[in-house]
Amino acid sequence: MSLLIKNASFIVTPFKVVKDKSIYIENGEIVEFETQEADIVIDARGMVALPGLINLHTHIPMTFLRGIAEDKGLEEWLNEEIWPREKKLNEKVVYYSSLLGIAESLRFGTTSFVDMYFFEEKVAEAAEKLGARAWVGEGIFDFFEKEKTEEEIKRAERVLKRVKKMKNELINPTIAPHSVYTCSKELLQVCSEIAREKGIPLHIHISETKEEVEEARKKFGMTPLLYLSSFKFFERNRVIGAHGIWLSARELVLARKFNLTIAHCPISNLKLGSGIAPIGKYLKRGIKVGLGTDGPASNNSLDMFEEMKVAALLQKLSDVRFPTLEVIKMATVYGARALGFKGGVIEENRPADIILVDLKKPHFMPIIKKEQVVNNLVYCAKGEDVAYTIVNGEIVCRGSVENLEKIESKVLEEVKKAGIVYE
Amino acid sequence: MSLLIKNASFIVTPFKVVKDKSIYIENGEIVEFETQEADIVIDARGMVALPGLINLHTHIPMTFLRGIAEDKGLEEWLNEEIWPREKKLNEKVVYYSSLLGIAESLRFGTTSFVDMYFFEEKVAEAAEKLGARAWVGEGIFDFFEKEKTEEEIKRAERVLKRVKKMKNELINPTIAPHSVYTCSKELLQVCSEIAREKGIPLHIHISETKEEVEEARKKFGMTPLLYLSSFKFFERNRVIGAHGIWLSARELVLARKFNLTIAHCPISNLKLGSGIAPIGKYLKRGIKVGLGTDGPASNNSLDMFEEMKVAALLQKLSDVRFPTLEVIKMATVYGARALGFKGGVIEENRPADIILVDLKKPHFMPIIKKEQVVNNLVYCAKGEDVAYTIVNGEIVCRGSVENLEKIESKVLEEVKKAGIVYE
Repeated sequence: MSLLIKNASFIVTPFKVVKDKSIYIENGEIVEFETQEADIVIDARGMVALPGLINLHTHIPMTFLRGIAEDKGLEEWLNEEIWPREKKLNEKVVYYSSLLGIAESLRFGTTSFVDMYFFEEKVAEAAEKLGARAWVGEGIFDFFEKEKTEEEIKRAERVLKRVKKMKNELINPTIAPHSVYTCSKELLQVCSEIAREKGIPLHIHISETKEEVEEARKKFGMTPLLYLSSFKFFERNRVIGAHGIWLSARELVLARKFNLTIAHCPISNLKLGSGIAPIGKYLKRGIKVGLGTDGPASNNSLDMFEEMKVAALLQKLSDVRFPTLEVIKMATVYGARALGFKGGVIEENRPADIILVDLKKPHFMPIIKKEQVVNNLVYCAKGEDVAYTIVNGEIVCRGSVENLEKIESKVLEEVKKAGIVYE
Repeated sequence: MSLLIKNASFIVTPFKVVKDKSIYIENGEIVEFETQEADIVIDARGMVALPGLINLHTHIPMTFLRGIAEDKGLEEWLNEEIWPREKKLNEKVVYYSSLLGIAESLRFGTTSFVDMYFFEEKVAEAAEKLGARAWVGEGIFDFFEKEKTEEEIKRAERVLKRVKKMKNELINPTIAPHSVYTCSKELLQVCSEIAREKGIPLHIHISETKEEVEEARKKFGMTPLLYLSSFKFFERNRVIGAHGIWLSARELVLARKFNLTIAHCPISNLKLGSGIAPIGKYLKRGIKVGLGTDGPASNNSLDMFEEMKVAALLQKLSDVRFPTLEVIKMATVYGARALGFKGGVIEENRPADIILVDLKKPHFMPIIKKEQVVNNLVYCAKGEDVAYTIVNGEIVCRGSVENLEKIESKVLEEVKKAGIVYE
């Protein structure tokens, strides 16, 4: 099956901007830029093609908690609103909530997402159903209770097995221990070993709040990243550290040494009052940075374009600034590298995860210089400007989502059945 | 001519959220909520109605400079990119660039905007052409050169006369001296007198940067707001102070006393590295705050929904927080009050400036509680979710903009003719 994207006004690879080219795709891969015929042809005149966006840190099923309560402090919010509801979770709530979140993601141009939550096999099923590329890992934590450690590892392994059974090249496993303040050293060590052995990414929250860092200092005599490196957590592993707001100079040296990728989630970090990660500094020191939305309850969208704009805006407050193009890279190729994924680039022999953004709208006009394409993608574009979302050579969304009302009514039905009470 | 908005799922007034109501409109006014027939009927099932958004500070014609250069420092950006181009401005560039910016504004649910730029009579004409409500004021500055003062006042008065001649109740005049660092005391005083005499708003930049405050201290021995109050600038005037990031405790007391409204422009303030206005504190002290996008060259959109989200997010970093509903008020009724405009509220006998936001999209789902409507409007909605924009009882935009390519090609043509050189 071949697909041709014809006459794209611009292509952002994202290393450079190319004008008036076509993209020929076969068997899920970008083949070349010359062919002018194919089974399916998209006329992309007035559009810009860029690599599908990679959401490097999210909890996608949390759509069922979106907007529930906004005007409470973090602790009150978690204790009164989020945790009591999460305790009543079941597979079905996760499945239908994931459908909603993945539908939004694809609509908004996110072709890949890296997820950590409960019942992750259901997230995987929802991703498969809608044709998204996903990295799923059961979020595990033993709260330092020895009798729970093994059980948590089993929970993670169950998802690994389920994912393997799916035999879907778009669905990839990760190991996702929650954080140093919720997981014992034993649990973290086993996770690190499994990841190493299987060659899969390790996904963990690191230094999201000042409190987390303070607590680690008291408990372990070390800040979180130092602590993790003290028992070789990073060794020969591909680690995605979500947030990474409060890293010390010494930790930055280690982050670089161990090739850690920070999943920068600026909107969630603002919304939860956690702070602003100094990613200009990180990038300058050679530390890898990708972008994530975090869960929809702390954002509250899954729109990577918004995330790009806020990331670009916040760095203007700091001394170390980076160019707009760097933001596009964070949302695409840097995320791909973190995952060991060949995508995130529009080039021959790369997976055909591509989105087309419609420039024929007043908020993109006028475009005269090539630089404006990149600048306007970062500062003016939103998820809703995405006209086509292509994953692995398949068109999975054409600018609108079908069966939405059915999905929403299923979410509501299951949420009520589970006793996750609403008015 | 009567218009009926039928079956709106929710109405945000914005003082409360009402469910399943209709809105009956006649002769540009909201009449009542019972009538079920009219000349034109909109079925608003699955939509939420809220007052048209009021952009309290912008330079709308700057669309022609959108995205021109993003990775330069402020000074370099102004000196090398913006000012040399602005010098070559003419009426036609302003007119067509305004059409573009106003088209975007209406598309994104902004029904009123408060503008300050050059050739403002052309902004007024563009607003009239597209059916927007506007407050226009020629941006004036004499740079402390005595021989220029009179000329600048004439420039402002010419626009006042032109607006009066239009006899369009939607187009309103303001007096817009640029700032204390670009206008002499004499110029500021005359502006203040004209505004008082004519009963029109005074629109000025106040304390946007630390440098501005420092300079005022050196030059006048006083910070900007104190300086203005020293010659009765605020006396019996309706003043909109754009930005107001760096106000002292003493200035806050005066701001409240003089009923100053701060036009908060959080995105521009981040993008230009100016800082974050502590509006939580302002609101708590009884100071009025509205919302603005600033010009499209420092944003780069004219999307008040984005502005609401960023305003809500940034305050989470501070100690004084405010509820989500307050953000909706800043974008509607607080802006209206600042202008002495009866709109900004969905109520009987108010001007019918109303927008309908389509909730039938995955990023709004699920909605169960009424609070979620407000929370999701602030944290999830974008301009592109606006399905209908109604100004003064007329549908001026139905979710897409016509004749766009014509407008863009005119902008490009005029920009080239004027010698505002592009590649």
